[in-house]
Amino acid sequence: MIGPELERLIQLLARLPGLGPRSARRAALHLVDKRDTVMMPLAEAMADAAAKVRTCPVCGNFDTVEPCAICSDVKRDQTAICVVEDVASLWAMERSGCFAGRYHVLGGLLSALDGIGPEDLGINRLVERVRRDEVREIILATPATVEGQTTAHYLADRLATTGATISGLAHGVPIGGELDYLDDGTISAALRARSSFTK
Amino acid sequence: MIGPELERLIQLLARLPGLGPRSARRAALHLVDKRDTVMMPLAEAMADAAAKVRTCPVCGNFDTVEPCAICSDVKRDQTAICVVEDVASLWAMERSGCFAGRYHVLGGLLSALDGIGPEDLGINRLVERVRRDEVREIILATPATVEGQTTAHYLADRLATTGATISGLAHGVPIGGELDYLDDGTISAALRARSSFTK
Repeated sequence: MIGPELERLIQLLARLPGLGPRSARRAALHLVDKRDTVMMPLAEAMADAAAKVRTCPVCGNFDTVEPCAICSDVKRDQTAICVVEDVASLWAMERSGCFAGRYHVLGGLLSALDGIGPEDLGINRLVERVRRDEVREIILATPATVEGQTTAHYLADRLATTGATISGLAHGVPIGGELDYLDDGTISAALRARSSFTK
Repeated sequence: MIGPELERLIQLLARLPGLGPRSARRAALHLVDKRDTVMMPLAEAMADAAAKVRTCPVCGNFDTVEPCAICSDVKRDQTAICVVEDVASLWAMERSGCFAGRYHVLGGLLSALDGIGPEDLGINRLVERVRRDEVREIILATPATVEGQTTAHYLADRLATTGATISGLAHGVPIGGELDYLDDGTISAALRARSSFTK
């Protein structure tokens, strides 16, 4: 006896990460209950974000300006690039407040199993950017998982000829840990203790 | 370095039940990532629901028609009313498919601590409705908590003069429930209300 509007709302809410069918139902009821204070503002915020937020053509971050605020910030060091898996990792790095360079968002990790190769991660674009902007330091901040480290090693090989210093986050990042789930202290400790990738 | 649009989206998402600050961030990133397939449809579904869904003036259910589809369904028994705490409980009863009467949504439970009295729960409206519609059976389906049972006892007192049969949901072992995982209160309730196996 649930109307089609509510049914559709529940189905769409259930697509959000972290919401199953039951919590989507609870969320929908909460939204309808708080129509004016939560549902309308949220609907507007979503429409607003959907209309305005773009993927930065330089680094892959999400922002309303092109290039993103980080890429266009002249105070940030253009010659240092931190390579991250996704925007969640970029935001986690920014929360630590320890990195004043720019980013490159891979949008994934190399995975033979999922058929994700170098061409899917825009690695050629990264190599070109490193050469063009005369980047002197590259920090590989992919997660400390098998795929993350495989990707880091592949990147280190590909970037070796650019002449930039290549380092990876220090161990201190727990093995199997995702950047988005780490506390800021661990991230800044790992960034400070970064070690050289070239032997 | 997160734009104000994304910041606002995260803050509003964090108000949903079941989403904390971190999962709201993940949800926001997921939404931006799936702009066309998830974010826009969800924003539209919310605006649509906010514009169309109303609280039924008879029973308190949420629906796009007034009175709601349950209240206006002539096949449902108008002389049986199931009293529930909220719309989530109403939906749960409907999912069981075992009740063919109508509902009354209290919108809360009596609570001295939170200052919720009978006038906040529309109990006078319920008593009037019971008399007007010549309701013959009232099922008190408030939760089996202290507040739920206090509310049920208060309702039973208030409704005693209407002449309707008043019952409450049985307490006992949930179907599929393991005794080892049940609390003592449930086990003693189930034991007290034990029923004969031999017919």
